[in-house]
Amino acid sequence: MREYIIGVDIGGTSIKFGKFDHSGKLLEKWNIRTDKTNDGENILKDIAESIKGKQPLNTIKGIGFGVPGPVTDNIVISCVNLGWGRKNLETEFHQLINDSEVTVKAANDATIAAAGEMYKGIARGYKNVVLFTIGTGVGGGIIINNALVEGINGVGGELGHIQVDFKHNFKCNCGKTGCLETVASATGIVNVAKEHLRKSNAKSPLRRFETFSAKKVIDYAKQGDSIAIQSIEESMKYLAFAMATVTYTINPDIIVVGGGVSNAGKYIIELIEKYYYDMVKPFISHTNFAIASLGNEAGIYGCCYLVKWWN
Amino acid sequence: MREYIIGVDIGGTSIKFGKFDHSGKLLEKWNIRTDKTNDGENILKDIAESIKGKQPLNTIKGIGFGVPGPVTDNIVISCVNLGWGRKNLETEFHQLINDSEVTVKAANDATIAAAGEMYKGIARGYKNVVLFTIGTGVGGGIIINNALVEGINGVGGELGHIQVDFKHNFKCNCGKTGCLETVASATGIVNVAKEHLRKSNAKSPLRRFETFSAKKVIDYAKQGDSIAIQSIEESMKYLAFAMATVTYTINPDIIVVGGGVSNAGKYIIELIEKYYYDMVKPFISHTNFAIASLGNEAGIYGCCYLVKWWN
Repeated sequence: MREYIIGVDIGGTSIKFGKFDHSGKLLEKWNIRTDKTNDGENILKDIAESIKGKQPLNTIKGIGFGVPGPVTDNIVISCVNLGWGRKNLETEFHQLINDSEVTVKAANDATIAAAGEMYKGIARGYKNVVLFTIGTGVGGGIIINNALVEGINGVGGELGHIQVDFKHNFKCNCGKTGCLETVASATGIVNVAKEHLRKSNAKSPLRRFETFSAKKVIDYAKQGDSIAIQSIEESMKYLAFAMATVTYTINPDIIVVGGGVSNAGKYIIELIEKYYYDMVKPFISHTNFAIASLGNEAGIYGCCYLVKWWN
Repeated sequence: MREYIIGVDIGGTSIKFGKFDHSGKLLEKWNIRTDKTNDGENILKDIAESIKGKQPLNTIKGIGFGVPGPVTDNIVISCVNLGWGRKNLETEFHQLINDSEVTVKAANDATIAAAGEMYKGIARGYKNVVLFTIGTGVGGGIIINNALVEGINGVGGELGHIQVDFKHNFKCNCGKTGCLETVASATGIVNVAKEHLRKSNAKSPLRRFETFSAKKVIDYAKQGDSIAIQSIEESMKYLAFAMATVTYTINPDIIVVGGGVSNAGKYIIELIEKYYYDMVKPFISHTNFAIASLGNEAGIYGCCYLVKWWN
C-alpha cells in the first residue's frame, strides 16, 4: 500500500530527507551530500537511490521537492546554486524511478518552508501566511488560501529583492542595489553596522573586530552598545518596511520570521513592531508576528504538505 | 426559478446595478442616488426596494455588493464614504429582504473591479490578477487562484498606500506621507507636476493655469512639454516601483491599470515599463500589462462573479 510521503529539501551543501506517514507525522529523517559536479547532473539520481535504499517505491504515495530557485507548476526555472537550468523535475524524476504512480511535485524551498510552518509549525491553523527567512540572504514564502503562491515566473515570495534602501549602495547578488537582502539579511545587518562604524566616532566593542557576524551586532545591541543598537534598528526598519508593503498587498493572517537571525527571537519581533505599526496605521492596529518553529525541518514538512496538497 | 444575479456597486454618489443571467451576461443596468444622510442608514433599504422593483426576489439566485471600504468575509470593517461603521452586510440584507435563499455577498469595490476584469474583461483567462485603479485616489484589487484576496483586516489590495516616495511630503488621506496615492493618482500627478513647476524656471503651458488636471499634465507631456514629461515620468516611476514590489510578492499573470488616468492608454503603459523592467531584472524580462476594458461596469461584473464564486 502506498502510505508514505517523502520530503526532499535540496540545499547547495546537503539534501535533507524526511519520511512521513499520511497524517504528516515525521517518521525518519536523513541527509546526503549535494553533488554539484557537472552542473548537478547526479543530484536527482542520488536522491532516487537514497529513497530506494530507505523505502520500497511501491509503498510511497508521493515525493515533494524543495528547490533553491524559482519554480512554477513543477518546472524549475533555474537553479544557479545547483548548476541547474530549466528542468521539468516531475518528468525527469518519474523517468528515473520508472514509477509514474508516485506523485512527484516541486516548489521553491522558501515557499515550501512557509508551507511547512503552516502545516505543522507556528502558523498552523492559518490559511494566509508570509514567511521571511533571514539568513545569509533573505528568502520569502507566501501561502494564500492554503495554496503556495509561486507566481507566473516563479518570482512569488522573492521578498529579499523588494527595494527598501535608497540611501546606501550595497550591491545585491541580483546585481541591483537597495534590495531588502542588502540591509536586513545576516550579511545586510553587517553591511549596515559597518556603515554606522564608518560614519561615527562613538566607541563600540564591534571596533575590536575586522569582520563580525550579524549575531555579534545583535548581541552587543542587547547589551546596550549604541552603534549596534542603531544598526540593528535600521536593519529591522527596512524589514518592517517590506512587511508593511506586503501587508498592503495581501494582508496575511500571520507574518513569520525564520532563518538564523530569527534566533534573536522576541528582541527582533519587538524592533519590527516598533516601525511596522507606524507604516500600516490607521488601517491596522494588530498583526500576528511569530518566530518560525520548525527550524531546518520546515522544508521537509513543507514538501510533505506539497504532496498532500496535490492529492 | 432562481436564475438571475444582481450586481450592486455602491459608490459615494451613486449605486450601480446590473442584472445578469447565469452565464454572466449583462441583461440590464440602472442607477440610483446614494443617500448618505443619517450615516447611510437608508442605503441598504433603497437597494432592496430598487431590486424588488426590477425583479421578483424569488427569481434571484444571488446579490453581490461592492463596497468602498475594507471588507473581509462579508463583514464591512468601515466605510467612511457612506457613513458606515462595522456592518454584517449579509445578515442585514437578508433581514431586509426576508429571503435567506438569496445568496448575499460583499467585497471591497476595487477588489470587485479586479474580479470583474478577470471574469469578463481584459484579464479573462488569467487566474492571478492585480488591478491598479488610478483615479482621484489609487485603489487596488488582487485575485489569486481566481479568488479575491481580502486580507484578515480587509487591507489586501490597498495598493494606494504602499510607500513609494521618500522625497516629497504630500499628505495622504490616510494621514501618512509617501503613499503611492500622493504621487501617482490623478491628484498625485498634479502634486508632482506643481512641484516640478515650483522647482524649475522652464517654460510650460501648465503655468497658464492656477489649477489643472492630471489629464492636462498627460496631454501636454504627449505634446512634448518638458515639465509635463518630467512630471508624468516621475509619477509613473512611483507606480512602477509599487508594481515591482507587488511582483516580488505575488508575481501575477497580468497587471491591469484602470481608472480615469488609464484613458491615456499605451502612453502610460510604456512609461511604466520603462522603469519597471529595471526594477525586476534579472528575475523577469516580460510581464503582461493591460488597460482595464470594462470601465465603470467592472464593478457590477465583479459583483456577479462574487456570487458565482460562492455558489
